[in-house]
Amino acid sequence: MRKPWSKWLALVVVLAFVFGSFISSVTDSSVMAEPQTARYKGIKNIIVLIGDGMGPSYMTAYRYFKDDPSTRVMESTAFDRHLVGAAKTYSWDEEENITDSAAAATSMAAGIKTYNGAISVDMDKRPVQTVLERAKELGKSTGLVSTSQITHATPAAFGAHDESRNNYDAIADDFYDERIRGKHKIDVMLGGGTDYFIRDDRNLVKLFKRDGYSYVTNRKEMFRTRNDQVLGLFAEVGLPKAIDRPDDVPSLEEMTNFAIERLSKNRKGFFLMVEGSQIDWAGHDNDIVAAMSEMQDFEEAFQAAIDFAKKDGRTLVVATADHSTGGLSIGRDGEYKWDTAPIKQAKRTPEFMAAQIADGADVERTLDEYIAFGLTDDEIQSVKEAEETGDESEIHRAIANIFDERSLTGWTTGGHTGEDVNVYAYGPGKEMFAGLIDNTDIANNIFKIMGKRHR
Amino acid sequence: MRKPWSKWLALVVVLAFVFGSFISSVTDSSVMAEPQTARYKGIKNIIVLIGDGMGPSYMTAYRYFKDDPSTRVMESTAFDRHLVGAAKTYSWDEEENITDSAAAATSMAAGIKTYNGAISVDMDKRPVQTVLERAKELGKSTGLVSTSQITHATPAAFGAHDESRNNYDAIADDFYDERIRGKHKIDVMLGGGTDYFIRDDRNLVKLFKRDGYSYVTNRKEMFRTRNDQVLGLFAEVGLPKAIDRPDDVPSLEEMTNFAIERLSKNRKGFFLMVEGSQIDWAGHDNDIVAAMSEMQDFEEAFQAAIDFAKKDGRTLVVATADHSTGGLSIGRDGEYKWDTAPIKQAKRTPEFMAAQIADGADVERTLDEYIAFGLTDDEIQSVKEAEETGDESEIHRAIANIFDERSLTGWTTGGHTGEDVNVYAYGPGKEMFAGLIDNTDIANNIFKIMGKRHR
Repeated sequence: MRKPWSKWLALVVVLAFVFGSFISSVTDSSVMAEPQTARYKGIKNIIVLIGDGMGPSYMTAYRYFKDDPSTRVMESTAFDRHLVGAAKTYSWDEEENITDSAAAATSMAAGIKTYNGAISVDMDKRPVQTVLERAKELGKSTGLVSTSQITHATPAAFGAHDESRNNYDAIADDFYDERIRGKHKIDVMLGGGTDYFIRDDRNLVKLFKRDGYSYVTNRKEMFRTRNDQVLGLFAEVGLPKAIDRPDDVPSLEEMTNFAIERLSKNRKGFFLMVEGSQIDWAGHDNDIVAAMSEMQDFEEAFQAAIDFAKKDGRTLVVATADHSTGGLSIGRDGEYKWDTAPIKQAKRTPEFMAAQIADGADVERTLDEYIAFGLTDDEIQSVKEAEETGDESEIHRAIANIFDERSLTGWTTGGHTGEDVNVYAYGPGKEMFAGLIDNTDIANNIFKIMGKRHR
Repeated sequence: MRKPWSKWLALVVVLAFVFGSFISSVTDSSVMAEPQTARYKGIKNIIVLIGDGMGPSYMTAYRYFKDDPSTRVMESTAFDRHLVGAAKTYSWDEEENITDSAAAATSMAAGIKTYNGAISVDMDKRPVQTVLERAKELGKSTGLVSTSQITHATPAAFGAHDESRNNYDAIADDFYDERIRGKHKIDVMLGGGTDYFIRDDRNLVKLFKRDGYSYVTNRKEMFRTRNDQVLGLFAEVGLPKAIDRPDDVPSLEEMTNFAIERLSKNRKGFFLMVEGSQIDWAGHDNDIVAAMSEMQDFEEAFQAAIDFAKKDGRTLVVATADHSTGGLSIGRDGEYKWDTAPIKQAKRTPEFMAAQIADGADVERTLDEYIAFGLTDDEIQSVKEAEETGDESEIHRAIANIFDERSLTGWTTGGHTGEDVNVYAYGPGKEMFAGLIDNTDIANNIFKIMGKRHR
């Protein structure tokens, strides 16, 4: 008796389906700039990589550095093919119109502008939810990886709230104390910072271990643990620079791969923030050898994230910087040349050499051991004179200066500079980050992808 | 009798139409990165705008400069919403790995890498066809507009061929002598450079006039001529900087609008190259007042091109730079601040003031007349000391330095720097310029749009 009706119904359903597909495909092509909720469904995991201080001149300098001089073409870096645009970085500081890492990280983590020094608090010092917290709220796994202490401004802004970036102990406390639905909010923490976790007043390592985390302090221990919740602290404060790193300290790529491997077990997906922290520190030191060392460390971590995303198909990777540092320029003093050869001939950073000399090592022997080109008498003399001041940072500056002069590297400041930073993206949703965006869009796009946040 | 057939036919046509739209809409969304030949059909006119020396830090600096300090948000420039990516700029020079304007312009005009100084000739000094020449071959109208002499490296590389950028006379000769299918190749030329057109050995102005061109030397004459072939030379060499320009010298925006108006009468379309030439000159002089003056002149020309393209619907606009100049940094000496207020208080460029002082004008009176803030005794003294050297460039440097110190502007070189430059695009085909491209892609994409070139 009901057969005719069901036939009609079937037809209506088929027509609706066809019409629906048609409409959705039309809409699809016209909303590249503002994707629909349906698009977000394909995004399960999000990896944000931040090269601290990695302004546009660093990106090109690194391409020059990696160039194979035996070919005429300048080879691409791992970043190049994924460039989608740039981001504005300015903060809302009352005194300063060039951002610091804390304000910029707050913008990228919490989607708001704030004052320099703020750790995911607004202009009135009220805490604001971060994308990492939203991910945890949704049952995803979460991770923070850095080569600085893990309590430093950038990772801090994703996992803590404080009126000042300098409150490292309070930030470490937040990592432990702040819970989301009764659970710890960060599953994997890898970086430096035992000084802030193992303190006279409180031992956060003990507490994390009691709550089921593995605690690891070197590469071997890290790879040995089978736990999915891991606190890895590989230095008292920051890790050594990549080219100075002893074998037992993991690279940023290894930490990134480890974090991805553990976090990706969660069928609800994960959020991971990876920071190449010391590109910025090299910039503050005006040290081009250290800058290229940290760029390479960061590039390898970026490639690891891309490799996972390619295999996975449901992972969005976004890489950018918080600001530029040092006023780095490719070329200086009227010369139309930037010579990367001397930079490649450094076996350790000037910082590393300066520390040895300040510790009593012989100037000439140290320079000879760690620099592959022969130094001029004037160059050696400049380091000897710095040594006589007894000031390690003077020795550092004198050695870094040798590389600046030979490579024709320019600098204008020991602080930050205001230019827009490059944005790279890969995977579903990458078009949301294209063109010129604001650094707050990094967080706000991720909030959109994850669905409305809890205010 | 034929009615049933026509009914079926009508149905088939309707179905084909619906299916066709469906397929085309699906294809459309999947080929953003590599448009199909069919897409090029929509592109009738092409406008390329080049901000000479306008590296990424200039783009952000200009946004700071234009910012309304009474709002917390930093307002966008005309460029911002059209950012699509960046371009590599390196040349194939044997000695230098940072490009000059000639090699970079050759890349953007002819699609090849070459040595510094080359004007659309290859490494073996053989001429290579330019996009302007290809456009003329196709019967389109063509134009070159600049604020430098129109024979300067950038416009030269679009309309001439020479082994050296310094051969200004030979370049002007090329503009006149080189014909395409028997016709002059550049219909509208606007800029400076009477020195190279009216010479003892040859008067190119007379020749162009004999061949039917209008010759104009000031704004009034330009707007009065009804001719579609126009040679406009508004200075012996380069035009005055925008804020120094007397009323009878047209702005870059006026020249751009004039060129578009004349060229767009051709139903086959047009190719136009517009250069903001002196952003680079300001950078070489490390003069932030002049740099912002020339950025504004260029922004207005860019907006004029966009406005035309919006109305027209079949115009592709691409804007970029050839390289960066001066190692400009937003902030210096450890300060997290870049103060645009003093820059805005300059009524003329330091170059203009220096010329007056070198001509005998009183130092204090000149500074007082053209600078709206009160100078300190030390500042006045520094200019007086420079005046005593009798060297105009020393006076220029002393005045520019006052603005550097007050605004916290950093510089590292009087030459060029190697960082990638921003790329902006609007209109049909803009997606071809997205992501990180090589400067040769600017020309090669345009060749693709116009169809295979004649080799």
